[in-house]
Amino acid sequence: MRQINIGLLGFGTVGTGVVRILLEEQDILRARVGVDLNLKYVADIDLTTDRGIALPEGVLIDDAQRVIDDPEVDIVLEMIGGKGIAKEMMLAAIRKGKHVVTANKALLAAQGNQIIREAAENGVNLGFEASVGGCMPVIKTLRESLVGNRVSAMIGILNGTCNYILTKISDEGCPFEEALAEAQDEGYAEADPFLDVEGLDTAHKLAILNSLAYGMEINLNDIYVEGIPKITPMDIEFAREFGYRIKLLAISKNKGETVEARIHPTMIPFDNLLSNVNGTVNAITLSCSAAGDILLYARGAGMMPTASAVVGDIVDLARNMLACARVRVPMLSCQMENIKNIPVMPMEDLKTHYYFRFAALDRPGVLSKIAGILGNHQISIKSVHQKGRKTDGAVPIVMLTHQAVEKAVRQALAEITALDVVADTPILIRIEDEDGEE
Amino acid sequence: MRQINIGLLGFGTVGTGVVRILLEEQDILRARVGVDLNLKYVADIDLTTDRGIALPEGVLIDDAQRVIDDPEVDIVLEMIGGKGIAKEMMLAAIRKGKHVVTANKALLAAQGNQIIREAAENGVNLGFEASVGGCMPVIKTLRESLVGNRVSAMIGILNGTCNYILTKISDEGCPFEEALAEAQDEGYAEADPFLDVEGLDTAHKLAILNSLAYGMEINLNDIYVEGIPKITPMDIEFAREFGYRIKLLAISKNKGETVEARIHPTMIPFDNLLSNVNGTVNAITLSCSAAGDILLYARGAGMMPTASAVVGDIVDLARNMLACARVRVPMLSCQMENIKNIPVMPMEDLKTHYYFRFAALDRPGVLSKIAGILGNHQISIKSVHQKGRKTDGAVPIVMLTHQAVEKAVRQALAEITALDVVADTPILIRIEDEDGEE
Repeated sequence: MRQINIGLLGFGTVGTGVVRILLEEQDILRARVGVDLNLKYVADIDLTTDRGIALPEGVLIDDAQRVIDDPEVDIVLEMIGGKGIAKEMMLAAIRKGKHVVTANKALLAAQGNQIIREAAENGVNLGFEASVGGCMPVIKTLRESLVGNRVSAMIGILNGTCNYILTKISDEGCPFEEALAEAQDEGYAEADPFLDVEGLDTAHKLAILNSLAYGMEINLNDIYVEGIPKITPMDIEFAREFGYRIKLLAISKNKGETVEARIHPTMIPFDNLLSNVNGTVNAITLSCSAAGDILLYARGAGMMPTASAVVGDIVDLARNMLACARVRVPMLSCQMENIKNIPVMPMEDLKTHYYFRFAALDRPGVLSKIAGILGNHQISIKSVHQKGRKTDGAVPIVMLTHQAVEKAVRQALAEITALDVVADTPILIRIEDEDGEE
Repeated sequence: MRQINIGLLGFGTVGTGVVRILLEEQDILRARVGVDLNLKYVADIDLTTDRGIALPEGVLIDDAQRVIDDPEVDIVLEMIGGKGIAKEMMLAAIRKGKHVVTANKALLAAQGNQIIREAAENGVNLGFEASVGGCMPVIKTLRESLVGNRVSAMIGILNGTCNYILTKISDEGCPFEEALAEAQDEGYAEADPFLDVEGLDTAHKLAILNSLAYGMEINLNDIYVEGIPKITPMDIEFAREFGYRIKLLAISKNKGETVEARIHPTMIPFDNLLSNVNGTVNAITLSCSAAGDILLYARGAGMMPTASAVVGDIVDLARNMLACARVRVPMLSCQMENIKNIPVMPMEDLKTHYYFRFAALDRPGVLSKIAGILGNHQISIKSVHQKGRKTDGAVPIVMLTHQAVEKAVRQALAEITALDVVADTPILIRIEDEDGEE
């Protein structure tokens, strides 16, 4: 019986986790796969740092090209990250007829169409389960388990850092900056948290999932993205009073000719299971024609959860090779010739429910002016709360709307912002509440 | 490009759902699989009932044997149910070299080892994702996504009927019999609800999952099974006061030399996501060495959700055939020669937390007698509640214990039952509370 040879590029956090599973779980993998998964190379420019795991003699090298060039290597693991050398190495491996496994969501979201087309043309597989939601098996579920379903919507918590920060603000009433600092102290946020807290990382993941769910090309550019830095304890508290929690959600809906796709802080009702997903965990609801709603929930990041997903992909590819199959499941769900170029719906066309918070100066007629402008733009108010708590001399007026159109909302808020009785820019948070659709 | 020919045996509820997907979603399946999934036969003894879907001319036949004998049929769907003719047909198809898909958990739990061994010997696949949790992709996740993990525990809500009834008792405070009658009225419970409410259906599913998770043979006989008919609104109310909900759980834990496996009504804390899984839905938490805790949540029964899982299996097999692979993923997770015969731990050895409710006659010294007996059996009391509400002249005394051994608990309860100051048999409900382990 043959063995499968694996070459790892990048001995960082995830790479180390993969090495740990491949070496420490050899017995269990052999019992399940039937052959040895042999880690032939670990290539990294840093040969000295102790990663806490002993590699067999001769495995650690500093020359990634050697991995690509070795005809014995069957599967290359791209764990370098970034879009430069990672892409170069990935394409080089593909062109040599090697299968590739990656967790590189930023690269796939930006250039996945090209990379996957090259893989298909070369008859090799690109495994990328680890790129979305860590060990949450959402890619396999979409591509295989739900193959008989049309997916109508996906709503997910796909960034553990943001969910940790929002949980902290919610539990402790601290401001965003403090929650972020704590997340950094505890290793849940990067030193540069921009990609996470501004929602871009979540957008990368949604772009990949949209392609798999709706049979479309990966399309990052048109996804609306809004991050969490503006979320305050006050808005979280108001949300709670209305029966909502605030989560950074990735939302996409299949509209037939277009796809609605957006990342923003969102209020969801307590009885939505996603509202109870706290801390660094990821979760996603997939709404399907036959299966109904499916929810997956798992650790979305970290060394071992991500490594678990990478090893799942490695074994998938190994099993293909052992069965003498090559590309068995189309990488983007559909056969390449059936992938459509479906546009993302312009955000201005969105129809949803809104939460507004205005900082109104305490003068007569303010409410009537605000309500008048909203009415002029066909925005119908569902409830108003004005409790007289003062912030910097202004009183918060909070409103929930019936379904309204984003374009009208933006125009109305611009007019309201210009009122001399309104201090500060109004706060807008979208609401996702199926029971409230009207 | 060739087509894949499918023969369905049994045009009942699930069979009808499968036909609907195969006929109505032909376009989407072709785009994803690359060839046509051709429904060549639907065999049923009843040729007249209108199932609400038109079959192409010549597809509906009353002779299952013709499906087995036709060399053009690639995949046979066993949707007959039961253990008699279903098993016969399944084995006949396997021996003719056909792949088989089934949702028949009762048959697999009882005789799956033999059937799967025959399939492996004949080089064909048996797909059975639909046998556990409807469209919840737990089998694929265990067998493929988590292949690099050791599973340490599984805790699941695997029977929608029981979960519906318990939710109803909890929400409306009605007795079990009333909730069951309503479940039957609404089509969520069978006319003969025995298999569901007594926990046997859940045990069938756990026996299958244990095999996949722990690399053991399917072993139904030794799983402890206790159903929900004894659950009262009073116990649900007490549970709520302690911060728990009552669910019928399938619980299994890998203890190395043995596996703990049990089905019984269980109290779980509010902050456990499973406690918020209400109605007919199924959910399961898989605790894994690398991935941590993964939760899957989906509709566990019904025509279309179950059909969705069957179609997932059909496509898996079709993709194998198109890639010229035969058995690619071992049916029971491990290679046949690596499957162990791991015994289920005797229930008497269980160590867990308990809730007791005693119906005590209102006389002096009752509490001391009960507590004395518990103490003699090394059962340490965590809290006692006696509120003086009278039921038939008796006062409920409720106790929660620290970790205790099932054998000692049974002996103590037998002694307490024999006390002349205790009316009725005491109520015992086990508690699953990780935070409370001590």
